[in-house]
Amino acid sequence: MRLLLVGASGTVGQAVANELAPYHELIRAGRHSGDLRVDLTDMASVERMYEAAGPLDGVITTAGNVHFGELAQTTPAQFNLGLQDKLMGQVNVVLAGIRHLRDGGSFTLTSGITGAEPIRLGANATTVNAAIEGFVRAAATELPRGLRINVVSATLLTESQDAYGPYFPGFEAVPGARVALAYRRSVEGVGSGRVYTVWQ
Amino acid sequence: MRLLLVGASGTVGQAVANELAPYHELIRAGRHSGDLRVDLTDMASVERMYEAAGPLDGVITTAGNVHFGELAQTTPAQFNLGLQDKLMGQVNVVLAGIRHLRDGGSFTLTSGITGAEPIRLGANATTVNAAIEGFVRAAATELPRGLRINVVSATLLTESQDAYGPYFPGFEAVPGARVALAYRRSVEGVGSGRVYTVWQ
Ligand SMILES: NC(=O)c1ccc[n+]([C@@H]2O[C@H](COP(=O)([O-])OP(=O)(O)OC[C@H]3O[C@@H](n4cnc5c(N)ncnc54)[C@H](OP(=O)(O)O)[C@@H]3O)[C@@H](O)[C@H]2O)c1
Ligand SMILES: NC(=O)c1ccc[n+]([C@@H]2O[C@H](COP(=O)([O-])OP(=O)(O)OC[C@H]3O[C@@H](n4cnc5c(N)ncnc54)[C@H](OP(=O)(O)O)[C@@H]3O)[C@@H](O)[C@H]2O)c1
Repeated sequence: MRLLLVGASGTVGQAVANELAPYHELIRAGRHSGDLRVDLTDMASVERMYEAAGPLDGVITTAGNVHFGELAQTTPAQFNLGLQDKLMGQVNVVLAGIRHLRDGGSFTLTSGITGAEPIRLGANATTVNAAIEGFVRAAATELPRGLRINVVSATLLTESQDAYGPYFPGFEAVPGARVALAYRRSVEGVGSGRVYTVWQ
Repeated sequence: MRLLLVGASGTVGQAVANELAPYHELIRAGRHSGDLRVDLTDMASVERMYEAAGPLDGVITTAGNVHFGELAQTTPAQFNLGLQDKLMGQVNVVLAGIRHLRDGGSFTLTSGITGAEPIRLGANATTVNAAIEGFVRAAATELPRGLRINVVSATLLTESQDAYGPYFPGFEAVPGARVALAYRRSVEGVGSGRVYTVWQ
Protein backbone atom coordinates (compact mmCIF):
# COMPACT_ATOMS: atom_id res chain seq x y z
CA MET A 1 0.00 0.00 0.00
CA ARG A 2 0.96 3.64 -0.40
CA LEU A 3 0.90 5.13 3.11
CA LEU A 4 1.45 8.59 4.54
CA LEU A 5 2.83 8.78 8.09
CA VAL A 6 2.58 12.19 9.76
CA GLY A 7 4.88 12.43 12.76
CA ALA A 8 7.33 9.91 11.32
CA SER A 9 10.35 11.37 13.12
CA GLY A 10 8.79 11.06 16.58
CA THR A 11 9.16 8.31 19.15
CA VAL A 12 5.89 6.62 18.19
CA GLY A 13 6.33 7.52 14.51
CA GLN A 14 9.76 5.89 14.23
CA ALA A 15 8.44 2.67 15.70
CA VAL A 16 5.50 2.71 13.29
CA ALA A 17 7.80 3.45 10.35
CA ASN A 18 10.06 0.54 11.28
CA GLU A 19 7.07 -1.81 11.36
CA LEU A 20 5.44 -0.63 8.11
CA ALA A 21 8.39 0.23 5.84
CA PRO A 22 9.27 -3.38 4.92
CA TYR A 23 5.75 -4.03 3.62
CA HIS A 24 4.56 -0.69 2.19
CA GLU A 25 5.56 2.39 0.26
CA LEU A 26 5.92 4.89 3.11
CA ILE A 27 5.81 8.67 2.74
CA ARG A 28 7.11 10.37 5.87
CA ALA A 29 5.79 13.76 6.95
CA GLY A 30 6.49 16.07 9.88
CA ARG A 31 6.64 19.70 10.87
CA HIS A 32 10.42 20.07 10.54
CA SER A 33 11.45 16.80 8.90
CA GLY A 34 10.41 14.09 6.45
CA ASP A 35 9.58 13.74 2.75
CA LEU A 36 6.76 16.25 3.21
CA ARG A 37 6.51 19.19 5.63
CA VAL A 38 3.17 19.98 7.17
CA ASP A 39 1.62 21.82 10.09
CA LEU A 40 -1.45 19.78 11.00
CA THR A 41 -3.00 22.72 12.83
CA ASP A 42 -3.19 24.63 9.51
CA MET A 43 -5.78 23.26 7.09
CA ALA A 44 -4.13 24.92 4.07
CA SER A 45 -0.89 23.15 4.95
CA VAL A 46 -2.75 19.83 5.29
CA GLU A 47 -4.33 20.32 1.86
CA ARG A 48 -0.91 21.05 0.32
CA MET A 49 0.44 17.87 1.96
CA TYR A 50 -2.27 15.77 0.30
CA GLU A 51 -1.70 17.41 -3.09
CA ALA A 52 2.02 16.66 -2.83
CA ALA A 53 1.51 13.12 -1.57
CA GLY A 54 -0.54 11.84 -4.51
CA PRO A 55 -2.78 8.77 -4.28
CA LEU A 56 -2.87 7.13 -0.85
CA ASP A 57 -4.23 3.91 0.65
CA GLY A 58 -3.78 5.07 4.20
CA VAL A 59 -2.83 7.97 6.44
CA ILE A 60 -1.41 7.53 9.92
CA THR A 61 -0.93 10.38 12.37
CA THR A 62 1.47 10.06 15.31
CA ALA A 63 1.63 13.78 16.09
CA GLY A 64 -0.08 16.11 18.50
CA ASN A 65 0.61 18.15 21.61
CA VAL A 66 -1.57 18.79 24.64
CA HIS A 67 -1.29 21.09 27.65
CA PHE A 68 0.01 19.68 30.93
CA GLY A 69 -0.67 21.59 34.12
CA GLU A 70 -2.83 21.86 37.21
CA LEU A 71 -6.47 22.42 36.35
CA ALA A 72 -6.91 25.29 38.82
CA GLN A 73 -4.02 27.14 37.14
CA THR A 74 -5.05 26.37 33.57
CA THR A 75 -6.27 29.23 31.37
CA PRO A 76 -8.86 28.74 28.61
CA ALA A 77 -6.13 29.56 26.07
CA GLN A 78 -3.88 26.80 27.44
CA PHE A 79 -6.73 24.32 27.46
CA ASN A 80 -7.63 25.29 23.92
CA LEU A 81 -4.06 24.60 22.78
CA GLY A 82 -4.54 20.86 23.09
CA LEU A 83 -7.89 21.08 21.33
CA GLN A 84 -6.34 22.96 18.41
CA ASP A 85 -3.18 20.84 18.19
CA LYS A 86 -3.68 17.15 18.90
CA LEU A 87 -7.46 17.10 18.30
CA MET A 88 -8.09 19.57 15.44
CA GLY A 89 -4.75 18.61 13.84
CA GLN A 90 -5.89 15.02 13.43
CA VAL A 91 -9.47 16.05 12.58
CA ASN A 92 -8.04 18.24 9.79
CA VAL A 93 -6.20 15.20 8.39
CA VAL A 94 -9.51 13.34 8.16
CA LEU A 95 -11.68 16.22 6.88
CA ALA A 96 -9.24 16.89 4.04
CA GLY A 97 -8.28 13.27 3.54
CA ILE A 98 -11.77 11.97 2.74
CA ARG A 99 -11.41 13.42 -0.77
CA HIS A 100 -7.83 12.20 -1.22
CA LEU A 101 -7.79 8.58 -0.09
CA ARG A 102 -8.34 5.75 -2.55
CA ASP A 103 -11.45 3.56 -2.12
CA GLY A 104 -11.04 1.29 0.90
CA GLY A 105 -8.29 3.47 2.37
CA SER A 106 -7.83 4.01 6.10
CA PHE A 107 -7.11 6.67 8.67
CA THR A 108 -5.25 5.69 11.84
CA LEU A 109 -5.10 8.36 14.52
CA THR A 110 -3.35 8.50 17.89
CA SER A 111 -4.87 9.06 21.32
CA GLY A 112 -3.26 7.61 24.48
CA ILE A 113 -3.97 5.81 27.75
CA THR A 114 -4.65 9.08 29.58
CA GLY A 115 -7.96 9.20 27.71
CA ALA A 116 -9.14 6.41 29.98
CA GLU A 117 -6.72 6.74 32.91
CA PRO A 118 -6.23 10.30 34.14
CA ILE A 119 -2.75 11.27 35.33
CA ARG A 120 -1.61 14.20 37.44
CA LEU A 121 -1.65 17.46 35.43
CA GLY A 122 -3.29 15.63 32.55
CA ALA A 123 -6.90 16.91 32.40
CA ASN A 124 -6.31 18.40 28.96
CA ALA A 125 -4.75 15.16 27.72
CA THR A 126 -7.67 13.07 28.98
CA THR A 127 -10.15 15.45 27.36
CA VAL A 128 -8.36 15.51 24.01
CA ASN A 129 -7.78 11.76 23.85
CA ALA A 130 -11.40 11.02 24.76
CA ALA A 131 -12.48 13.51 22.08
CA ILE A 132 -10.33 11.81 19.42
CA GLU A 133 -11.84 8.45 20.30
CA GLY A 134 -15.34 9.92 20.08
CA PHE A 135 -14.49 11.45 16.73
CA VAL A 136 -13.28 8.11 15.39
CA ARG A 137 -16.39 6.32 16.69
CA ALA A 138 -18.64 8.76 14.81
CA ALA A 139 -16.55 9.29 11.67
CA ALA A 140 -16.47 5.52 11.08
CA THR A 141 -20.26 5.59 10.56
CA GLU A 142 -20.04 8.30 7.90
CA LEU A 143 -16.98 7.61 5.78
CA PRO A 144 -17.78 6.95 2.09
CA ARG A 145 -16.25 4.48 -0.41
CA GLY A 146 -15.26 1.85 2.13
CA LEU A 147 -12.90 4.19 3.95
CA ARG A 148 -12.07 3.09 7.49
CA ILE A 149 -10.87 4.95 10.58
CA ASN A 150 -9.35 3.75 13.86
CA VAL A 151 -7.27 5.13 16.70
CA VAL A 152 -4.40 3.63 18.67
CA SER A 153 -4.30 4.28 22.41
CA ALA A 154 -0.93 3.28 23.81
CA THR A 155 0.44 3.49 27.31
CA LEU A 156 3.87 5.02 27.90
CA LEU A 157 6.50 3.73 25.45
CA THR A 158 9.66 2.17 26.86
CA GLU A 159 11.55 4.63 24.64
CA SER A 160 9.83 7.57 26.38
CA GLN A 161 10.36 6.38 29.95
CA ASP A 162 13.21 8.79 30.67
CA ALA A 163 11.20 11.75 29.42
CA TYR A 164 7.71 10.97 30.76
CA GLY A 165 8.11 8.12 33.24
CA PRO A 166 7.59 10.32 36.33
CA TYR A 167 4.13 11.32 35.06
CA PHE A 168 3.07 7.64 34.82
CA PRO A 169 3.82 6.12 38.24
CA GLY A 170 3.07 2.41 38.28
CA PHE A 171 2.19 2.27 34.60
CA GLU A 172 3.84 -0.57 32.69
CA ALA A 173 5.69 0.78 29.67
CA VAL A 174 5.61 -1.11 26.36
CA PRO A 175 8.21 -1.19 23.59
CA GLY A 176 7.42 0.97 20.56
CA ALA A 177 7.69 -2.13 18.39
CA ARG A 178 4.62 -3.59 20.12
CA VAL A 179 2.68 -0.33 19.85
CA ALA A 180 3.52 -0.24 16.15
CA LEU A 181 1.71 -3.54 15.65
CA ALA A 182 -1.59 -1.88 16.56
CA TYR A 183 -1.06 0.69 13.82
CA ARG A 184 -0.35 -2.13 11.36
CA ARG A 185 -3.48 -3.95 12.51
CA SER A 186 -5.51 -0.81 11.82
CA VAL A 187 -3.97 -0.22 8.38
CA GLU A 188 -4.06 -3.79 7.08
CA GLY A 189 -7.10 -5.09 9.00
CA VAL A 190 -10.83 -4.72 8.46
CA GLY A 191 -11.85 -2.87 11.64
CA SER A 192 -13.34 0.60 11.66
CA GLY A 193 -14.39 2.87 14.51
CA ARG A 194 -12.09 0.89 16.78
CA VAL A 195 -9.83 2.01 19.61
CA TYR A 196 -6.84 -0.33 19.54
CA THR A 197 -5.42 -0.21 23.05
CA VAL A 198 -1.81 -1.19 23.85
CA TRP A 199 -1.77 -0.81 27.59
CA GLN A 200 0.45 -3.64 28.81
CA MET B 1 -27.98 24.57 48.95
CA ARG B 2 -27.28 27.68 46.92
CA LEU B 3 -27.14 26.54 43.29
CA LEU B 4 -26.42 28.26 39.97
CA LEU B 5 -28.11 26.81 36.88
CA VAL B 6 -26.70 28.01 33.56
CA GLY B 7 -29.11 27.31 30.71
CA ALA B 8 -32.15 27.48 32.99
CA SER B 9 -34.52 28.65 30.24
CA GLY B 10 -33.74 25.69 27.95
CA THR B 11 -35.60 22.43 27.55
CA VAL B 12 -33.24 20.51 29.84
CA GLY B 13 -32.71 23.52 32.08
CA GLN B 14 -36.42 24.03 32.77
CA ALA B 15 -36.80 20.39 33.78
CA VAL B 16 -33.78 20.65 36.09
CA ALA B 17 -35.10 23.89 37.59
CA ASN B 18 -38.49 22.28 38.29
CA GLU B 19 -36.79 19.40 40.10
CA LEU B 20 -34.36 21.49 42.16
CA ALA B 21 -36.31 24.67 42.96
CA PRO B 22 -38.46 23.16 45.75
CA TYR B 23 -35.38 22.04 47.69
CA HIS B 24 -32.71 24.68 46.98
CA GLU B 25 -32.05 28.35 46.44
CA LEU B 26 -31.75 28.47 42.67
CA ILE B 27 -30.04 31.21 40.67
CA ARG B 28 -30.96 31.01 37.00
CA ALA B 29 -28.51 32.11 34.31
CA GLY B 30 -28.61 32.20 30.51
CA ARG B 31 -27.39 34.13 27.52
CA HIS B 32 -30.57 36.14 27.00
CA SER B 33 -32.62 35.35 30.09
CA GLY B 34 -32.46 34.55 33.81
CA ASP B 35 -31.31 36.22 37.03
CA LEU B 36 -27.80 36.47 35.60
CA ARG B 37 -26.72 36.90 31.96
CA VAL B 38 -23.62 35.11 30.78
CA ASP B 39 -21.91 33.95 27.61
CA LEU B 40 -20.13 30.73 28.60
CA THR B 41 -17.77 30.99 25.62
CA ASP B 42 -16.32 34.21 27.08
CA MET B 43 -14.21 33.67 30.20
CA ALA B 44 -14.54 37.31 31.31
CA SER B 45 -18.31 36.91 31.20
CA VAL B 46 -18.08 33.68 33.23
CA GLU B 47 -15.94 35.43 35.84
CA ARG B 48 -18.48 38.26 36.09
CA MET B 49 -21.26 35.69 36.53
CA TYR B 50 -19.48 34.15 39.52
CA GLU B 51 -18.78 37.55 41.08
CA ALA B 52 -22.46 38.44 40.77
CA ALA B 53 -23.68 35.05 42.01
CA GLY B 54 -21.94 35.12 45.39
CA PRO B 55 -21.23 31.96 47.41
CA LEU B 56 -22.35 28.73 45.73
CA ASP B 57 -22.67 25.07 46.71
CA GLY B 58 -23.11 23.90 43.15
CA VAL B 59 -23.11 24.91 39.52
CA ILE B 60 -25.10 23.10 36.85
CA THR B 61 -24.71 23.75 33.13
CA THR B 62 -27.43 22.74 30.67
CA ALA B 63 -26.13 24.86 27.79
CA GLY B 64 -23.98 24.28 24.78
CA ASN B 65 -24.22 24.04 20.99
CA VAL B 66 -22.45 21.76 18.53
CA HIS B 67 -22.20 21.62 14.75
CA PHE B 68 -24.45 19.22 12.86
CA GLY B 69 -23.51 18.30 9.31
CA GLU B 70 -21.93 15.73 7.05
CA LEU B 71 -18.31 15.12 7.92
CA ALA B 72 -17.09 15.38 4.34
CA GLN B 73 -18.66 18.86 4.07
CA THR B 74 -17.53 20.07 7.50
CA THR B 75 -14.92 22.82 7.68
CA PRO B 76 -12.39 23.09 10.52
CA ALA B 77 -14.10 26.32 11.59
CA GLN B 78 -17.47 24.56 11.85
CA PHE B 79 -15.96 21.66 13.75
CA ASN B 80 -14.23 24.10 16.07
CA LEU B 81 -17.53 25.79 16.84
CA GLY B 82 -18.69 22.85 18.95
CA LEU B 83 -15.33 22.69 20.69
CA GLN B 84 -15.50 26.38 21.59
CA ASP B 85 -19.18 26.40 22.57
CA LYS B 86 -20.38 23.25 24.33
CA LEU B 87 -16.92 21.99 25.41
CA MET B 88 -14.90 25.15 26.25
CA GLY B 89 -18.06 26.84 27.57
CA GLN B 90 -18.47 24.18 30.24
CA VAL B 91 -14.71 23.91 30.83
CA ASN B 92 -14.68 27.69 31.46
CA VAL B 93 -17.36 27.23 34.12
CA VAL B 94 -15.14 24.74 35.93
CA LEU B 95 -11.81 26.57 35.51
CA ALA B 96 -13.31 29.76 36.96
CA GLY B 97 -15.58 27.98 39.39
CA ILE B 98 -12.87 26.16 41.33
CA ARG B 99 -12.08 29.41 43.14
CA HIS B 100 -15.73 30.35 43.69
CA LEU B 101 -17.43 27.21 44.99
CA ARG B 102 -17.76 26.54 48.70
CA ASP B 103 -15.94 23.51 50.17
CA GLY B 104 -17.68 20.34 49.11
CA GLY B 105 -19.48 22.03 46.23
CA SER B 106 -20.22 20.35 42.93
CA PHE B 107 -20.14 20.90 39.19
CA THR B 108 -22.69 19.08 37.03
CA LEU B 109 -22.12 19.33 33.29
CA THR B 110 -24.13 18.11 30.31
CA SER B 111 -23.03 15.79 27.52
CA GLY B 112 -25.55 13.53 25.69
CA ILE B 113 -26.18 10.07 24.33
CA THR B 114 -24.47 10.88 21.02
CA GLY B 115 -21.15 10.72 22.90
CA ALA B 116 -21.59 6.96 22.99
CA GLU B 117 -24.07 6.42 20.14
CA PRO B 118 -23.22 8.31 16.96
CA ILE B 119 -26.11 9.69 14.91
CA ARG B 120 -26.23 10.89 11.31
CA LEU B 121 -24.55 14.31 10.92
CA GLY B 122 -23.39 14.11 14.54
CA ALA B 123 -19.60 13.58 14.42
CA ASN B 124 -19.00 16.90 16.12
CA ALA B 125 -21.57 16.11 18.81
CA THR B 126 -20.00 12.72 19.52
CA THR B 127 -16.54 14.29 19.72
CA VAL B 128 -17.64 17.10 22.03
CA ASN B 129 -19.69 14.88 24.34
CA ALA B 130 -16.87 12.34 24.62
CA ALA B 131 -14.47 15.19 25.38
CA ILE B 132 -16.71 16.55 28.15
CA GLU B 133 -16.88 13.11 29.75
CA GLY B 134 -13.09 12.78 29.53
CA PHE B 135 -12.73 16.20 31.11
CA VAL B 136 -14.99 15.24 34.00
CA ARG B 137 -13.13 11.95 34.54
CA ALA B 138 -9.82 13.81 34.85
CA ALA B 139 -11.02 16.93 36.68
CA ALA B 140 -12.56 14.77 39.41
CA THR B 141 -9.05 13.56 40.35
CA GLU B 142 -7.74 17.11 40.75
CA LEU B 143 -10.45 19.19 42.37
CA PRO B 144 -9.48 20.64 45.77
CA ARG B 145 -11.50 21.11 48.99
CA GLY B 146 -13.85 18.19 48.45
CA LEU B 147 -15.30 19.67 45.25
CA ARG B 148 -17.02 17.12 43.03
CA ILE B 149 -17.78 17.02 39.31
CA ASN B 150 -20.13 14.85 37.26
CA VAL B 151 -21.82 14.92 33.89
CA VAL B 152 -25.32 13.91 32.82
CA SER B 153 -25.70 12.12 29.50
CA ALA B 154 -29.36 11.99 28.49
CA THR B 155 -31.01 10.59 25.42
CA LEU B 156 -33.53 12.72 23.53
CA LEU B 157 -36.07 14.38 25.83
CA THR B 158 -39.77 13.80 25.18
CA GLU B 159 -40.12 17.59 25.15
CA SER B 160 -37.60 17.80 22.27
CA GLN B 161 -39.10 15.06 20.12
CA ASP B 162 -40.77 17.45 17.67
CA ALA B 163 -37.55 19.37 17.15
CA TYR B 164 -34.94 16.58 17.11
CA GLY B 165 -36.86 13.30 16.83
CA PRO B 166 -35.94 12.73 13.16
CA TYR B 167 -32.23 12.72 14.07
CA PHE B 168 -32.77 9.94 16.63
CA PRO B 169 -34.59 7.16 14.79
CA GLY B 170 -35.48 4.29 17.10
CA PHE B 171 -34.17 6.06 20.19
CA GLU B 172 -36.56 5.99 23.14
CA ALA B 173 -37.20 9.50 24.42
CA VAL B 174 -37.42 10.17 28.17
CA PRO B 175 -39.36 12.90 29.99
CA GLY B 176 -37.31 15.86 31.15
CA ALA B 177 -38.52 15.19 34.70
CA ARG B 178 -36.62 11.87 34.67
CA VAL B 179 -33.49 13.44 33.21
CA ALA B 180 -33.66 16.09 35.93
CA LEU B 181 -33.34 13.40 38.60
CA ALA B 182 -29.82 12.61 37.36
CA TYR B 183 -28.83 16.24 37.89
CA ARG B 184 -30.27 16.09 41.39
CA ARG B 185 -28.38 12.87 42.08
CA SER B 186 -25.16 14.58 41.02
CA VAL B 187 -25.79 17.71 43.12
CA GLU B 188 -26.99 16.02 46.31
CA GLY B 189 -25.09 12.73 46.05
CA VAL B 190 -21.50 11.76 46.82
CA GLY B 191 -20.31 10.66 43.36
CA SER B 192 -17.51 12.38 41.47
CA GLY B 193 -16.06 11.76 38.02
CA ARG B 194 -19.29 9.99 37.11
CA VAL B 195 -21.27 9.99 33.89
CA TYR B 196 -24.92 9.67 34.90
CA THR B 197 -26.68 8.23 31.87
CA VAL B 198 -30.43 8.56 31.29
CA TRP B 199 -30.89 6.57 28.13
CA GLN B 200 -34.23 4.84 28.54
N1 LIG C 1 5.73 8.62 23.48
C1 LIG C 1 4.81 7.94 24.18
O1 LIG C 1 5.14 7.22 25.14
C2 LIG C 1 3.37 8.00 23.77
C3 LIG C 1 2.47 7.06 24.28
C4 LIG C 1 1.11 7.13 23.93
C5 LIG C 1 0.69 8.14 23.07
N2 LIG C 1 1.58 9.04 22.59
C6 LIG C 1 1.08 10.10 21.68
O2 LIG C 1 1.68 9.93 20.42
C7 LIG C 1 1.87 11.21 19.81
C8 LIG C 1 3.34 11.31 19.39
O3 LIG C 1 4.13 11.20 20.56
P1 LIG C 1 5.72 11.11 20.46
O4 LIG C 1 6.24 10.85 21.82
O5 LIG C 1 6.11 10.20 19.35
O6 LIG C 1 6.05 12.65 20.05
P2 LIG C 1 7.42 13.22 19.46
O7 LIG C 1 8.53 12.28 19.65
O8 LIG C 1 7.54 14.61 19.99
O9 LIG C 1 7.13 13.30 17.88
C9 LIG C 1 6.16 14.17 17.38
C10 LIG C 1 6.12 14.03 15.87
O10 LIG C 1 5.03 14.79 15.38
C11 LIG C 1 5.47 15.78 14.48
N3 LIG C 1 4.66 16.98 14.73
C12 LIG C 1 4.51 17.66 15.89
N4 LIG C 1 3.66 18.69 15.73
C13 LIG C 1 3.26 18.65 14.44
C14 LIG C 1 2.40 19.45 13.64
N5 LIG C 1 1.74 20.52 14.15
N6 LIG C 1 2.23 19.13 12.33
C15 LIG C 1 2.87 18.06 11.81
N7 LIG C 1 3.70 17.27 12.50
C16 LIG C 1 3.90 17.57 13.80
C17 LIG C 1 6.93 15.99 14.76
O11 LIG C 1 7.55 16.43 13.57
P3 LIG C 1 8.99 17.16 13.55
O12 LIG C 1 9.92 16.32 14.39
O13 LIG C 1 9.36 17.18 12.11
O14 LIG C 1 8.75 18.52 14.15
C18 LIG C 1 7.34 14.58 15.16
O15 LIG C 1 7.56 13.80 13.99
C19 LIG C 1 1.46 12.26 20.85
O16 LIG C 1 0.16 12.72 20.56
C20 LIG C 1 1.46 11.49 22.14
O17 LIG C 1 0.52 11.98 23.08
C21 LIG C 1 2.91 9.00 22.90
N1 LIG D 1 -33.02 18.58 24.51
C1 LIG D 1 -32.60 17.33 24.52
O1 LIG D 1 -33.34 16.39 24.14
C2 LIG D 1 -31.21 17.01 25.01
C3 LIG D 1 -30.88 15.66 25.29
C4 LIG D 1 -29.58 15.38 25.75
C5 LIG D 1 -28.65 16.41 25.87
N2 LIG D 1 -29.01 17.69 25.58
C6 LIG D 1 -27.98 18.74 25.72
O2 LIG D 1 -28.39 19.64 26.72
C7 LIG D 1 -27.95 20.96 26.40
C8 LIG D 1 -29.14 21.89 26.45
O3 LIG D 1 -30.08 21.44 25.48
P1 LIG D 1 -31.54 22.10 25.38
O4 LIG D 1 -32.31 21.31 24.38
O5 LIG D 1 -32.08 22.32 26.75
O6 LIG D 1 -31.15 23.53 24.71
P2 LIG D 1 -32.04 24.86 24.61
O7 LIG D 1 -33.48 24.55 24.86
O8 LIG D 1 -31.66 25.51 23.33
O9 LIG D 1 -31.50 25.75 25.84
C9 LIG D 1 -30.21 26.24 25.86
C10 LIG D 1 -30.00 27.05 27.13
O10 LIG D 1 -28.62 27.39 27.22
C11 LIG D 1 -28.48 28.79 27.24
N3 LIG D 1 -27.28 29.13 26.44
C12 LIG D 1 -27.03 28.83 25.15
N4 LIG D 1 -25.82 29.25 24.79
C13 LIG D 1 -25.30 29.86 25.87
C14 LIG D 1 -24.07 30.54 26.14
N5 LIG D 1 -23.10 30.68 25.20
N6 LIG D 1 -23.87 31.02 27.38
C15 LIG D 1 -24.80 30.88 28.34
N7 LIG D 1 -25.96 30.26 28.15
C16 LIG D 1 -26.21 29.76 26.92
C17 LIG D 1 -29.78 29.37 26.68
O11 LIG D 1 -29.95 30.64 27.24
P3 LIG D 1 -30.95 31.75 26.60
O12 LIG D 1 -32.27 31.06 26.32
O13 LIG D 1 -31.06 32.80 27.67
O14 LIG D 1 -30.26 32.23 25.33
C18 LIG D 1 -30.78 28.35 27.17
O15 LIG D 1 -31.11 28.61 28.51
C19 LIG D 1 -27.30 20.87 25.01
O16 LIG D 1 -25.91 20.82 25.15
C20 LIG D 1 -27.83 19.56 24.45
O17 LIG D 1 -26.91 18.94 23.58
C21 LIG D 1 -30.26 18.01 25.16
